[in-house]
Amino acid sequence: MTMTERTLTGIGATPRSGAGTVVWYSPDAGLPDPDEADVDPDAERQRFTDARETARTELEAERERTAERVGEQEAEVFDAHRQFLADPQIEDGVESALEDGLPVEHAVQRAFADPIEQFAGMGGRTAERADDLRDVRDRLVRILAGDDRVDLDELPEGSVVLAERLTPSDTARLDPDRVAGFATVTGGRTSHAAIFARSLALPAVVGVGDDLRDVAEGATVVVDGEAGELVVDPSEERREAARATRDVEIREVPVTTADGAEIEVAANVGRPTELEAANARGADGIGLYRTEFLFLDRDAPPDEDEQYETYREALETFPDGRVVVRTLDIGGDKPIPYLELPDEENPFLGERGIRRSLGPDADLFETQLRALLRAAADGEGRLAVMFPLVATPEELTDALETVSGVADALDEEGVDYAVPELGVMIETPGAVFTAPELAARVDFLSIGTNDLTQYVMAAARENERVAGLREPRHPAVLRAIARTVEAAHEHDAWVGMCGEMAGDPELTELLVGLGLDELSMSAVTVPEVKAAVRGVDTEDAADRASGALEAATSAQAIKRIESGATNR
Amino acid sequence: MTMTERTLTGIGATPRSGAGTVVWYSPDAGLPDPDEADVDPDAERQRFTDARETARTELEAERERTAERVGEQEAEVFDAHRQFLADPQIEDGVESALEDGLPVEHAVQRAFADPIEQFAGMGGRTAERADDLRDVRDRLVRILAGDDRVDLDELPEGSVVLAERLTPSDTARLDPDRVAGFATVTGGRTSHAAIFARSLALPAVVGVGDDLRDVAEGATVVVDGEAGELVVDPSEERREAARATRDVEIREVPVTTADGAEIEVAANVGRPTELEAANARGADGIGLYRTEFLFLDRDAPPDEDEQYETYREALETFPDGRVVVRTLDIGGDKPIPYLELPDEENPFLGERGIRRSLGPDADLFETQLRALLRAAADGEGRLAVMFPLVATPEELTDALETVSGVADALDEEGVDYAVPELGVMIETPGAVFTAPELAARVDFLSIGTNDLTQYVMAAARENERVAGLREPRHPAVLRAIARTVEAAHEHDAWVGMCGEMAGDPELTELLVGLGLDELSMSAVTVPEVKAAVRGVDTEDAADRASGALEAATSAQAIKRIESGATNR
Repeated sequence: MTMTERTLTGIGATPRSGAGTVVWYSPDAGLPDPDEADVDPDAERQRFTDARETARTELEAERERTAERVGEQEAEVFDAHRQFLADPQIEDGVESALEDGLPVEHAVQRAFADPIEQFAGMGGRTAERADDLRDVRDRLVRILAGDDRVDLDELPEGSVVLAERLTPSDTARLDPDRVAGFATVTGGRTSHAAIFARSLALPAVVGVGDDLRDVAEGATVVVDGEAGELVVDPSEERREAARATRDVEIREVPVTTADGAEIEVAANVGRPTELEAANARGADGIGLYRTEFLFLDRDAPPDEDEQYETYREALETFPDGRVVVRTLDIGGDKPIPYLELPDEENPFLGERGIRRSLGPDADLFETQLRALLRAAADGEGRLAVMFPLVATPEELTDALETVSGVADALDEEGVDYAVPELGVMIETPGAVFTAPELAARVDFLSIGTNDLTQYVMAAARENERVAGLREPRHPAVLRAIARTVEAAHEHDAWVGMCGEMAGDPELTELLVGLGLDELSMSAVTVPEVKAAVRGVDTEDAADRASGALEAATSAQAIKRIESGATNR
Repeated sequence: MTMTERTLTGIGATPRSGAGTVVWYSPDAGLPDPDEADVDPDAERQRFTDARETARTELEAERERTAERVGEQEAEVFDAHRQFLADPQIEDGVESALEDGLPVEHAVQRAFADPIEQFAGMGGRTAERADDLRDVRDRLVRILAGDDRVDLDELPEGSVVLAERLTPSDTARLDPDRVAGFATVTGGRTSHAAIFARSLALPAVVGVGDDLRDVAEGATVVVDGEAGELVVDPSEERREAARATRDVEIREVPVTTADGAEIEVAANVGRPTELEAANARGADGIGLYRTEFLFLDRDAPPDEDEQYETYREALETFPDGRVVVRTLDIGGDKPIPYLELPDEENPFLGERGIRRSLGPDADLFETQLRALLRAAADGEGRLAVMFPLVATPEELTDALETVSGVADALDEEGVDYAVPELGVMIETPGAVFTAPELAARVDFLSIGTNDLTQYVMAAARENERVAGLREPRHPAVLRAIARTVEAAHEHDAWVGMCGEMAGDPELTELLVGLGLDELSMSAVTVPEVKAAVRGVDTEDAADRASGALEAATSAQAIKRIESGATNR
């Protein structure tokens, strides 16, 4: 008997496919009936205190695990969860419900109801906080119920997880080596689950809707994250095709295109713990080392020696590669107690990046440069340093003058130093339009596509309402990239990309065709991008890129050109 | 006896000069001594109520006057003042001070002290609110004191007003036909006084500092707003040179450059009351008719007929010219009760302009287009319609489809209509990079330099901390303009500019050199830009522009190229 394929459509979260066996995951524990419960308020209060303590411990562990497995930025959501857990409004709400004689499970539900509704009613990023609150609520309810649900850590190999929705902690527990993908009833392209799926390079389709509930436990499915489809009872060909995309060899040496062009494939990291993972996934080096972690969550800035040690550690992890350190990139949207960060109406258009380093944070900038110049002098590894959010050649002049001032001072003090490779991040349209003047004076340019896209399209990174405009394949963004590459090569500078776009293997050919010399991404996608690089013929890629730049008038059309399709 | 010139330096607020006689203006009324005052709380309370009522009436009148004399946008500051006047925190503060037995002048001072300090301590635009609060406080104190200070409305011709600082209402009362300029001890480039000075095209230097206080009443001075200097006891040559820049003839007919190229000089307006003023100053037409006034300060949107009448009125005011209407350009930073505007973390990068018209405000957009297409059909005047904040060719496609849908509907209903000239505002880098695709499908492009500059430089319009980056002469911005002009002309579209840059006569040659066909600005600077156009030789201008685009690496350098100076 051959079964007929059945296809459910949703929103593809990662451009990859996987096939496997359905495991339903339900975090809902069910509530006790309030009438039947024998309620002792004091006992319930104690249960709440215990559950909250357990939740706190869980959150700490999950934060740690997520930072390691997925990334520091993704792990930050758990900090928000811990804050909600400790929120006095919640505590008061629970207390008042307990006083009304409710069992604690119901008290928790009631206490969260109002805040969830308030957040959900607000626009933009704030509405997503409602989901965070739901996660915290569900965690407490689960702990209270002593839930023995499916253990996400221990799924059989080849599982495809189906669920109403997955919380960040659920998603972080999925082991990409065992899980073939997941699909959820709810969720959008920027839901936590979708973001985590991308970071883990896990096939995923979200927002499938009610039909997903009809898919049976144990069914065979293909999760096609590119088409945004879940195929139930897939044909053998379909399953094979899906599986084929999963196995990618890790290559520990640099790769070249099919015709021999060298493309550096590096990793973006935001914390020393991620260095080893980047190495293990075969990254040629670090294309973006974010240094904010050195400055966050503490009462005073790190001193020169602490920074020096941190940078040395990175260089030692990649003795044969290059480590590109971005100087402090902080703005009014991140709280740092010892800095006077302004409260701005449009923080993404405010005083951040190099603007602060050349202004109120000039001292920090000098200390960081001293540590970097010292680190560049010692032992193994090649250091490069780049400046974030440069918008004018004058800013680069000022930054370079600071570097030479620091070098002179170290010289006078008799301290060993070397001036590392220096570069500029291309994140503002201003930098794109003056790329020739910038490239003429540095060793490299590195395109940060996330910020560049938000400024080119005037569409904030966190704003769901303008998400449709933030397509990095848009011709406007591609033209900005092409212009930057051209300026760099004209002035003998190399040019890399460290935005999310660089980690999408579907775009590798296009990016090589545009002339990028280096691609830097989350460590997890390094193997696939390396594999993609090896399949590229640079001449074909250049043709395709120039077609995309010239002929296309929409991101949709670019997609067609990429896939070589003539009708889609 | 010849006196020696003495030069005080400050910040030039307008690129023009004037000479005249010093009149000191001091709004400080002095406070009664609290110990000597014979305080009756009830009487004081009544005095406060009366003073507040007087203040409210004054503010309404000044709002109206400012909207007419200066501009609608500038007038909005008085709305904020009225809100502060009615603030319950202020009222409570005054009441509590009165209960403590203070005379009402002191009660007002005390009630404002905390809020002023709070605002002043915050960054960015919020800090400017402290100045607004000071204005409201000083107004109340002045009214309470029955102040008989210098009457700014009745100054002798040729007066140069010197003051500690000027409030928006002070500045709005200055009559450009009588006042030769002003200078203040405090204030920056974006203080209200400086902004008003630019709108009134009044020579002004702000932030001169303490030295200004030593300039005597009745002294002869030159206010050089370009150099940012106040020259005391100027030489005769200097005085003549300053006066020469003041007299500009109003030309009611279109002008050409010295070599005969036609440049349209139009006005930006934001309200029907401004149409007549634009006409009187010799505007060839309206290059930007903002339509937000139709939608603000009311409980329901205007219907089709009301809009139709409004657009007809504009067309009738300029029977021989063109009126370019911008469709509704609203976003999360302006409250409109009947629209669900999102609360966004970065409203300038959010859902605004055409994004709302193609999304949640689609109904409003259709109604507006119906009214516009009907207005285009009738009687005299040439209508053009442009779409704000377009970032992609797809958005233009959608907008044009809406226009043809509206046309079809009117056709079916048998209603008279005509499709006006259609255009796109070039305000996002995305629109610049896709300008060829946009220009190919419309009649014109209009460059909005204020928004374009903020996006190119990633520097928010309202943020004082990044003001240095918002220089429209920056090569990045000039290159974006050049690219837009080139794309427009290649596709036989005309191209205009309606940002603040267009109204600066110092930039006219550069803009003509860049190839702009139309310049649109505050009505007040129309005569001077017309005069500047007549002095331009297009070939020289093109040379200068291409020099500015190619050679310069900074706004500073552009300024040198403009002025033809070799060393400055």
